Amino acid sequence: MNTKCPARDFIYQDWILTETRFNPEQLHSRGTVFTIGNGYLGTRGSLEEGHARGLPATFIHGVYDDVPVVYTELANCPDWLPMIITINGDRFRMDQGEVLQYERKLDVSQGLLSRSLRWRSPSGSIIDIHFERFASLADQHILGQRCQITAHDGDCLVEIQASINGYAENQGFNHWEGIDQGKTESGIWLESRTRGTQIEIGMAAKMTISGAEAALQVSIVPGYPTISASFLAKSQQTITVEKLVTVFTSREVNKQVTAAQEKLAQLPDYTTLLTANQQAWDEVWQKSDIYIEGDPKAAFAVRYNLFQLLIAAPSHDEKVSIPAKTLSGFGYRGHIFWDTEIFILPFFIFTQPALARNLLSYRYHTINGARRKATHYGFKGAMYAWESADTGDEVTPRWALPDDYYGEDVRIWCRDREIHNSADIAYAVWQYWQATGDDVWMGDYGAEIILDAAIFWSSRVEYNSQGDRYEIRGVIGTDEYHEFVHNNTFTNRMVQWHLEKALKVADWLRHTFPEGAKELEEKLQITPELEAHWQDIIKKICIFYDSSTGLIEQFEGFFQLKDINLEDYEPRQRSMQAILGIETANQHQVLKQPDVLMLLYLMRPSAEFPYNEKALKSNWDYYAPRTDITYGSSLGPAIHGILASDLGKSATAYERFMQALMVDLEDSRGNANDGIHGASAGGIWQAVIFGFGGIQFTEQGPTANPHLPPNWTRLKFQLHWRGQWYQFDLPGGQEAGGREQEEKSQGGFPSGRTSGAGEQSSTLKAFPLALPLVEKGGAEEEVFTLQSPLPNTQSPDIRGFIFDLDGVLTDTAEYHYLGWQRLADEEGIPFDREANEALRGVSRRESLMRIIGDRPYSEAQIQEMMERKNRYYIELIEHITPKDLLPGAIALLDELRQAGIKIGIGSASKNAHTVIERLGLADKVDAIADGYSVQTPKPAPDLFIFATHQLGLEPKQCVVVEDAAAGVEAALAGGMWTIGLGPIERVGAAHVVLPSLAGVTWTDLRTKLNEAARV
Amino acid sequence: MNTKCPARDFIYQDWILTETRFNPEQLHSRGTVFTIGNGYLGTRGSLEEGHARGLPATFIHGVYDDVPVVYTELANCPDWLPMIITINGDRFRMDQGEVLQYERKLDVSQGLLSRSLRWRSPSGSIIDIHFERFASLADQHILGQRCQITAHDGDCLVEIQASINGYAENQGFNHWEGIDQGKTESGIWLESRTRGTQIEIGMAAKMTISGAEAALQVSIVPGYPTISASFLAKSQQTITVEKLVTVFTSREVNKQVTAAQEKLAQLPDYTTLLTANQQAWDEVWQKSDIYIEGDPKAAFAVRYNLFQLLIAAPSHDEKVSIPAKTLSGFGYRGHIFWDTEIFILPFFIFTQPALARNLLSYRYHTINGARRKATHYGFKGAMYAWESADTGDEVTPRWALPDDYYGEDVRIWCRDREIHNSADIAYAVWQYWQATGDDVWMGDYGAEIILDAAIFWSSRVEYNSQGDRYEIRGVIGTDEYHEFVHNNTFTNRMVQWHLEKALKVADWLRHTFPEGAKELEEKLQITPELEAHWQDIIKKICIFYDSSTGLIEQFEGFFQLKDINLEDYEPRQRSMQAILGIETANQHQVLKQPDVLMLLYLMRPSAEFPYNEKALKSNWDYYAPRTDITYGSSLGPAIHGILASDLGKSATAYERFMQALMVDLEDSRGNANDGIHGASAGGIWQAVIFGFGGIQFTEQGPTANPHLPPNWTRLKFQLHWRGQWYQFDLPGGQEAGGREQEEKSQGGFPSGRTSGAGEQSSTLKAFPLALPLVEKGGAEEEVFTLQSPLPNTQSPDIRGFIFDLDGVLTDTAEYHYLGWQRLADEEGIPFDREANEALRGVSRRESLMRIIGDRPYSEAQIQEMMERKNRYYIELIEHITPKDLLPGAIALLDELRQAGIKIGIGSASKNAHTVIERLGLADKVDAIADGYSVQTPKPAPDLFIFATHQLGLEPKQCVVVEDAAAGVEAALAGGMWTIGLGPIERVGAAHVVLPSLAGVTWTDLRTKLNEAARV
Repeated sequence: MNTKCPARDFIYQDWILTETRFNPEQLHSRGTVFTIGNGYLGTRGSLEEGHARGLPATFIHGVYDDVPVVYTELANCPDWLPMIITINGDRFRMDQGEVLQYERKLDVSQGLLSRSLRWRSPSGSIIDIHFERFASLADQHILGQRCQITAHDGDCLVEIQASINGYAENQGFNHWEGIDQGKTESGIWLESRTRGTQIEIGMAAKMTISGAEAALQVSIVPGYPTISASFLAKSQQTITVEKLVTVFTSREVNKQVTAAQEKLAQLPDYTTLLTANQQAWDEVWQKSDIYIEGDPKAAFAVRYNLFQLLIAAPSHDEKVSIPAKTLSGFGYRGHIFWDTEIFILPFFIFTQPALARNLLSYRYHTINGARRKATHYGFKGAMYAWESADTGDEVTPRWALPDDYYGEDVRIWCRDREIHNSADIAYAVWQYWQATGDDVWMGDYGAEIILDAAIFWSSRVEYNSQGDRYEIRGVIGTDEYHEFVHNNTFTNRMVQWHLEKALKVADWLRHTFPEGAKELEEKLQITPELEAHWQDIIKKICIFYDSSTGLIEQFEGFFQLKDINLEDYEPRQRSMQAILGIETANQHQVLKQPDVLMLLYLMRPSAEFPYNEKALKSNWDYYAPRTDITYGSSLGPAIHGILASDLGKSATAYERFMQALMVDLEDSRGNANDGIHGASAGGIWQAVIFGFGGIQFTEQGPTANPHLPPNWTRLKFQLHWRGQWYQFDLPGGQEAGGREQEEKSQGGFPSGRTSGAGEQSSTLKAFPLALPLVEKGGAEEEVFTLQSPLPNTQSPDIRGFIFDLDGVLTDTAEYHYLGWQRLADEEGIPFDREANEALRGVSRRESLMRIIGDRPYSEAQIQEMMERKNRYYIELIEHITPKDLLPGAIALLDELRQAGIKIGIGSASKNAHTVIERLGLADKVDAIADGYSVQTPKPAPDLFIFATHQLGLEPKQCVVVEDAAAGVEAALAGGMWTIGLGPIERVGAAHVVLPSLAGVTWTDLRTKLNEAARV
Repeated sequence: MNTKCPARDFIYQDWILTETRFNPEQLHSRGTVFTIGNGYLGTRGSLEEGHARGLPATFIHGVYDDVPVVYTELANCPDWLPMIITINGDRFRMDQGEVLQYERKLDVSQGLLSRSLRWRSPSGSIIDIHFERFASLADQHILGQRCQITAHDGDCLVEIQASINGYAENQGFNHWEGIDQGKTESGIWLESRTRGTQIEIGMAAKMTISGAEAALQVSIVPGYPTISASFLAKSQQTITVEKLVTVFTSREVNKQVTAAQEKLAQLPDYTTLLTANQQAWDEVWQKSDIYIEGDPKAAFAVRYNLFQLLIAAPSHDEKVSIPAKTLSGFGYRGHIFWDTEIFILPFFIFTQPALARNLLSYRYHTINGARRKATHYGFKGAMYAWESADTGDEVTPRWALPDDYYGEDVRIWCRDREIHNSADIAYAVWQYWQATGDDVWMGDYGAEIILDAAIFWSSRVEYNSQGDRYEIRGVIGTDEYHEFVHNNTFTNRMVQWHLEKALKVADWLRHTFPEGAKELEEKLQITPELEAHWQDIIKKICIFYDSSTGLIEQFEGFFQLKDINLEDYEPRQRSMQAILGIETANQHQVLKQPDVLMLLYLMRPSAEFPYNEKALKSNWDYYAPRTDITYGSSLGPAIHGILASDLGKSATAYERFMQALMVDLEDSRGNANDGIHGASAGGIWQAVIFGFGGIQFTEQGPTANPHLPPNWTRLKFQLHWRGQWYQFDLPGGQEAGGREQEEKSQGGFPSGRTSGAGEQSSTLKAFPLALPLVEKGGAEEEVFTLQSPLPNTQSPDIRGFIFDLDGVLTDTAEYHYLGWQRLADEEGIPFDREANEALRGVSRRESLMRIIGDRPYSEAQIQEMMERKNRYYIELIEHITPKDLLPGAIALLDELRQAGIKIGIGSASKNAHTVIERLGLADKVDAIADGYSVQTPKPAPDLFIFATHQLGLEPKQCVVVEDAAAGVEAALAGGMWTIGLGPIERVGAAHVVLPSLAGVTWTDLRTKLNEAARV
């Protein structure tokens, strides 16, 4: 299928966007549109050769800088794009000479941006130039560029200059201080550091030329290392220039320049790298694609929006999240808003749950920032930042500065008053958990978020004794046109909902992970009194709901505000706030974006209060006409679209959908230059799946109740739900035709969970695709991860190593033995080194059980003995030093880190942290799974699975190094690659068996693992 | 004399500062200390080869940018310094290899910075490197660099890379957008533009190498154009690399890159340029030097401070002024404070009056900003900005931003409350006028400043009807430790003084320039009622003066504040505000800097109220011990020093003097890195001249009443006073020795003008050096400029051209003739073309007088006829277009502008502005002197003198182009070079006579003028 749908200078094909004309007026909006990325970084669509008004930008996740004058922001990273071509002395630029042919293409099926043009130079030479670039999804540290040059009418002298530009800037501000730069055998490198946060970046680049004789030269202009070459391009012969770039930051590795250089030195050619990238994208799209027939513009644009979300989603990092403008622009300084949890997250929850988990984990890792914010404002618990960056502290700018000398600074109140996001985050955590059943994550991460944010609420609400009710005064709801309101219904109901769920989570935790629950309750000071207080708030918080009509008042006194007819202001090109002014907008019943309707939308999945048919209808009728849906918030249209679908208003639904869909491609709000509207893109997915697809979740799985737009003939997608994949292939044309009719139809109204799921799901075509969940013991130990069998047809893609501690990195086994020996001696139980051998990799309790055998000890005695042995052991390991590292361990760790591989520890020991500290390894490991991490010990795979979660990796991307049979068994059960250290008798089941780590290198191991994979 | 005085790692010689050790810890403070400049730009002492923590900076006067996020600031300009040297593959850097010998020298006698070192490269090569740089004072657009390399132990392969770095930054912010760059025959060029103010800069550079065979290569790395060369340096042979740079901005010329390229192409070699620079400095020092014997450290340091002021003083620009941190650092963003008028200006008034005039003219050109500020705050007249930049609008930052997420923004109140500077500026205008007798400037510029600022005061004071007094409430005085006070005595008395002087100026103006007075009174709405109001304020403004003791209360209620003993806090390293906190300091009798004592100091020159011996003594005793003189404001010590001198406290005087003197050289306040303490440097000059020299001004001229520090054996300096130079050569040792005795002595108290000037001036050694003022008619036409005869031994230094309009640039003479002809015809008076020839260059009234001869017309009729003729003429010139330009005019104008020569118009016509506009020349001329500019017409020189003032030039730097005998006579009388166009009979008195401008080039003219000069 190759349907073309022209729109202005864009052609939309299945997977390909083609720009047919270069318009310098659109330089910056198109710079956003042509953003590429790989979940590690995003690079805007700037021109390789530069442009007078160009703003080249590459943003790397987590690379924030906090220079006071500009507030914390994502630092624009050194630019990897510069390639300057000079033809017979004329420098190629779009604004000089003459562009005879032009085409720019973005292929979202593989994230490849290309530009082809025929150019006549000022002095009359005609050449064809073809540029390509991609950020590899197969290896996030690799960036590829290709330039092909063909002289068209006679030989040309060509000079090409490929650089890394260290002078990247954020609207004039350069966050980077140069550390060093230089030449290598294969090219150039640059090392810089952010001024405030001191994050270091290392980049390396090389260039190859084929098709002509060319000698490379390297120059060391400060901050702008450059490789150049001159050659003769013979007429009609194509010369290919390839530029490969590698990039690491100190967030991932210690020696980022070395890592970049070494990776660069090992790279295969451009074509091979591009193929690997294509394969990685194939895998992603297999899960996340939406296929639409009958509406080619929408078909491409939906994929385009999903592509922009996918390239912004961190696959290897759970300490970052997706900014409001993704990684595609300077807007909002790379800050993270509720946009991510409420608008963007569902796409990932249901198609890429591992990415969803990373995004939510960010809120766990930044919870201390939320706690600092709460403390600052005089509250308790976790008060999440309205705008969040690396630490979770509040980074919303305080002031919008005036443009002229005497203008007034305008205070930005969101940091103080727009507080609903703490409940929104809790909402997202709950949705993720419901959809995935990821109890481990919920126990470790999610519960703490929900509970500590609930504690914030109980300190934030005010008890009004006159009315015997709880109030939340002085807030901004989701509708930001009203900047200081009391008892915003959205906020109050979300708080109530949040507290309801907090009580459930607390209960669930106590039953499922009693030890963890106890620890958390102590840490957060959760008491029965507090839970009773939550109950009381739930009961008495004021909600303005008229049960006779279902109408909800947006906040206390909203209905008393002056009314307004938005149609009186049409046609308009500006927001109602811009037209009326902040104060006047405040005094009118005009909304920037859905507020009551947003609440209804969020309560829709489980049809919770106040969501019902009557409320939806009456509130839609009241609020939709009063909402500035065109120039208010870009968060509005998709949500209105879905609710319109629910109400059977098919034409409105499609109109709102298209409005959200084209916001960046058609720059309909005029601010695409600031970056992709991430929330709108996320809303698009929800509009297709929940709106047009009518997806509802029942206990039996997702069901569809589709009402496709009239022109859609088919809609195909897949969803991941509680460990299984469900594919939907929905035919179109089932709805009536004319607009009038649609607007009156009630047929689309979804059933909700309360009514029988089967009733209206006549079009359900879902079938499970995936293997069922791996059963390993009790229900509480369910692991949501899809357990695909290890691949054996290609080399494993190793991104993490998980080391057992005892017997692998160090010989604490010896100290354990000494501890057990002393205990056994005191108790008069026979025990020796040989007996000790059987305890390798076995938990403390199990070890003791084996030692005491069938001797009659009470549980209290057992507890005491475990503690006693541990005391002896602790005393012994006080004396551990880095000298206790086993031979080869440190060398291998360093080599792995330099190769960008993450390091985890998977040890049954409850003292793993102490031991790691004393061994001097604390800075070298990314994650520690220890005796507190999981309940079921090796040979269950839980401990290692836990470690892969912490590393943000899939089991098949990890290698476990073990010296114990139980450990090898656990790793294999978890689906990891396994290296056994010791005799075949003990660890022979591992993929690779070695006597010890002495002399072992990553290169060796990779070869051996590749061999094992081919078996 | 070659006295050396070591202090830490500095050696101070007569004119030379030598740094003997490179300490990277002092990188930034020494970057300030080693600043060079030429009154057009300042360049910090950064290293040519760069440094990891380096902040290279060049500031050009007036090049402000106003990006909101960082407030308006002087933009750091593209860096002209980069020179990277690579020896056998090792890049030379101070932090690599080994520095075996090191010396950095600043020679303030000629503004030459040099660095010599011997370096062992990491791979073991030893070389000597000698760097030099200067910014030419002879031609402000020329910058010179030299590098000499000598291989020490064997041949070396040397690579040298010389660049212009377009990525200059203000603490991370790059104010520049690149426009273009490229190569030329002789080197490289770069063109950039500020982001907000859109000021464009053009720079060009070339490099030459002598002593080795080297081919130059040019690379076009974006924003970083670079010339490089590789050569073999043979052992013990010195290779010399010279880099010459030219720089222009759009503030001076239209085509700044062309100007830079053309100037570069014409440059002689480095040595010739350095000699011209040296000569220019010789001239400056002849006037501005202070010679001290017996105290070598002070002798150098005084010259150093004066040097730093001289390089910051604009000699060619009256729309800029000296920022608080001069052009030497980022501190205070290049903003201009009262520091300039009160602390810095006297040095210029008395040694470089033309520069003083430029500095004060800045306040005239920015008066509209002051008016906007007044309007913003609801007042009238001119309320000068506390911090001022290019427009005169208030640019004090509103907030001091916190360093952490939750810190509070601290409001900076100076913009609102520290208002005394409007009176300070009036004070400076008055002092300049008194010292120079520059009535023309006072009439044109000064009066408007004084009067409009007086109008501000009358709108700002509040009348308290209960006390029948005027008050000024809610201010910050000069002591900024008290942020909100009422009736600060300094402010109130300065306002009173200001209004007293405003009345005198208004009176003087009416008598001297009645027409100008009338115009100004109309413009500013000065009425008799307003002047009566000023009188009333003068009479009734409250001043807290105890006439019995002379003690003054700093402000209402100051004596009620808690007292404090500063000695209790010694030793300390921080300001009292930092120790106590803002609030607590507010509540105590602790001063940041002199306030009452500052008032006494300002009233000292003419011993005006409240200055008297008793008041000085009692207020010193009260306030000096309560003033944070060590860590408060750097503005304090010099003033305290002078007053201590007055009181005979010689030891204290010297101590305070040295404290001010060494503030940057010894970085005693720890903030030298922000830039030179300009006010302190200005205070130094005042301390030497007024304090130690005891200079007073009597009607007979300046007299000295010296009390030199005990170790000073001689003090020599010269002062310019009312058109004459006075030289002082004061012997030391006349005062008693011991400290105790000094402290009690009253002998040093100055007489003031009220006592006989001769009485105590036994040590007076002044004698007039200069020619007396040129007498030209009435006293009101006195021109202060020193009329030195035209030099005839060397080529003239031409910097401006002043063109007559009619008959020179265009033939409006024809339209005048037609106008007169019509009038004469109507009146029946015989008139023809021949009669018209006699009217060339003659004013309208005089022309009419000649036409009517002795016919009896009344004054009213004459007025009517002048108006009638003018009406005819105006009708005729409506039709003038650029086609009416005479041949050759436009070509010569463009050539002159590109050569950096300023263009003025000197025309008797009252329609000159209109004509210039219609001819399309408005953008090509810098100044227009027309029929409104002066009273006495040609052949008096006034009109051309006026034009030279407007251009900021001396008459001898200007060429007048005239076609009329009266015009040639006027130009010669004014001391300008003169070109006459027309027959010898008419213009033969001119230096050069030409038939017309057709085919005339600047090169030709220069040759002819040089010839004329040699006659």
